[in-house]
Amino acid sequence: MEILNISPVTFTDGRMLILDQTLLPGETVYQELFTKEDVWDAIYKLKVRGAPAIGVAAGYGLYLSVKDIAADSYEDYYKKFMDVKNYLASSRPTAVNLFWALDRMESALQKFDPKLKKTEEASECKSWEQLFAEIREGLFLEAEKIRLEDEASCRTMGEYGLSLLKPGMGILTHCNAGTIATAKYGTCLAPLYIGQERGYDFKVFADETRPLLQGARLTAWELSQVGIDTTLICDNMASIVMKNGWVDAIVVGCDRMAANGDGANKIGTSGVAILAKEYGIPFYMFVPTSTIDINTKTGKDIHIELREGEEIYKMWYAKSMAPEGIKTYNPAFDVTDAKYITAVITEKGILYPPYEESIAKLFENETRKAE
Amino acid sequence: MEILNISPVTFTDGRMLILDQTLLPGETVYQELFTKEDVWDAIYKLKVRGAPAIGVAAGYGLYLSVKDIAADSYEDYYKKFMDVKNYLASSRPTAVNLFWALDRMESALQKFDPKLKKTEEASECKSWEQLFAEIREGLFLEAEKIRLEDEASCRTMGEYGLSLLKPGMGILTHCNAGTIATAKYGTCLAPLYIGQERGYDFKVFADETRPLLQGARLTAWELSQVGIDTTLICDNMASIVMKNGWVDAIVVGCDRMAANGDGANKIGTSGVAILAKEYGIPFYMFVPTSTIDINTKTGKDIHIELREGEEIYKMWYAKSMAPEGIKTYNPAFDVTDAKYITAVITEKGILYPPYEESIAKLFENETRKAE
Repeated sequence: MEILNISPVTFTDGRMLILDQTLLPGETVYQELFTKEDVWDAIYKLKVRGAPAIGVAAGYGLYLSVKDIAADSYEDYYKKFMDVKNYLASSRPTAVNLFWALDRMESALQKFDPKLKKTEEASECKSWEQLFAEIREGLFLEAEKIRLEDEASCRTMGEYGLSLLKPGMGILTHCNAGTIATAKYGTCLAPLYIGQERGYDFKVFADETRPLLQGARLTAWELSQVGIDTTLICDNMASIVMKNGWVDAIVVGCDRMAANGDGANKIGTSGVAILAKEYGIPFYMFVPTSTIDINTKTGKDIHIELREGEEIYKMWYAKSMAPEGIKTYNPAFDVTDAKYITAVITEKGILYPPYEESIAKLFENETRKAE
Repeated sequence: MEILNISPVTFTDGRMLILDQTLLPGETVYQELFTKEDVWDAIYKLKVRGAPAIGVAAGYGLYLSVKDIAADSYEDYYKKFMDVKNYLASSRPTAVNLFWALDRMESALQKFDPKLKKTEEASECKSWEQLFAEIREGLFLEAEKIRLEDEASCRTMGEYGLSLLKPGMGILTHCNAGTIATAKYGTCLAPLYIGQERGYDFKVFADETRPLLQGARLTAWELSQVGIDTTLICDNMASIVMKNGWVDAIVVGCDRMAANGDGANKIGTSGVAILAKEYGIPFYMFVPTSTIDINTKTGKDIHIELREGEEIYKMWYAKSMAPEGIKTYNPAFDVTDAKYITAVITEKGILYPPYEESIAKLFENETRKAE
């Protein structure tokens, strides 16, 4: 039984819909996008957020924006396609997945370049109308592939993650690495959805995740939607909840993992990991292999983004909650040392310490397969 | 050089002033109280908060409310005094220090009972007017004593605490155990004020302390007022701040300590203590001896108050920050196990582990002195 029907981006029956995440948790609004300006706006205004979800939105969004462009040749079309691509790329210049998805779409288009077709099936024989129809289909299929690959990756990660959990367990999570941040299922929340399908009856504790409250606004919302037993707590309550014996496992996502297994994730994750170690609770980090950077040696080499202090004392509030001129320190992420991570769950399997070795082996295998 | 001129409650030149803490950090308003209704309102609405500060407000507030009562005898006056006392006691029925201070004032009054005076200096010889003048003075002196004793206790605790710190140190604190929660100086913030007087140049990190934000609203405010270098962080940033090497000591207050050294304090304190242990940073708990309950064996016997979930997702915010109907867990305190506490700083000296022994010894000495 498939219980999860929340996807942040869909393209069905010719209509592109996005869940407007800026309105959560108060309103659940699926907005239809019609133009490239709509797509740009949805990404720019964080209506779609989460690296994989942005990739999916970029794929479908680019398709939506170029599918009806009037052109009279491949060259003419390609030029107009690139204008749209560059325009969409400007919507969130720091989102790596945005560029990655747009580049995939460009590569998909390039496969139809008549100059590359040297075989008997030379496209010179085709009219532009015929070729354009093929291009449209090819671009749509590439966008579908981006979504389906991520969905499959998340589902697989979920199955691996679920193999570490037992029915009835108490699970604590931090931030939102859930279905609305990916094509579907999420990374660390995927086992909870699959578990829910199978009647696992998890008791989930969601850290609110200051200062941006992704836990309260997003994780608590999406888990509640499918009836998963969810309790919202402040970040500083994680310790007492663990001490009370209510938590059997921690599941968190990852923004970037170094070759030694140090993992950067939402600010506060490292504190949760240390508490878990102290209380003897396994700490599982869900890391798509694309998030592991084997060229980054350790967590020390990961740059931590610092954000505006107003997010701490002013954002969300009616008035300032700190004295005027107060100094702040507002890092968006912190690095959890590998030694606190019980296992790393990827879409290719579960990695255990020592991570220098298990990560190196995973990438060797991948390289071998690719050769 | 005395640099701290913030007291939450003062009674000078016949005027009782309280700092309205509900308006902090935006506005610094000292409100004059004129009537018993004003006093009741100030305590009820948390304009005065912090156990010792409530005690001080109760002492002065009771004096203010009874100093001009018209009566024609001790018995008549006593009856009217008790009406006011009971009225003020209803302002915050869970505040132990409120009752303690009001009882002290009643005992002070009882010393003037003519029936108790059996000596040559029998008060029968005095007119009611004479006696009433003495009562007024006696009550005022008792209220002054409540304030001055707490101030001296805090200052002494501050000196003991400062002996553990060095100039230039980075100090992290949680919640507000500061000057505005006591008569003056605070408990765990006292060494910071004394250090500031002596040019210690501490770098302080204040946890915002969700959900009620005492760190952001109160601690950051009061430390900034005297020019102490203060950086506001979210609770979940304590780990990265410690990892960065910026914290040399943790100072926190205590709401109740058991005979074995387990200490209940504001929610989140136990997590800070565990992080401190992991990062090898000393964790100091400031505990007036009146806060140690030797009849409470361990932290397990301390009842933890649960509060409304709306404090987590609705209080302070313009709209709800969690999905409708979300479950919450909102404990006001947690218990820090004795094993995480490097030293307990009291006004009678510094206690070290094993606390069963050092606490028992302290109370034996006190009992011996009293005998």
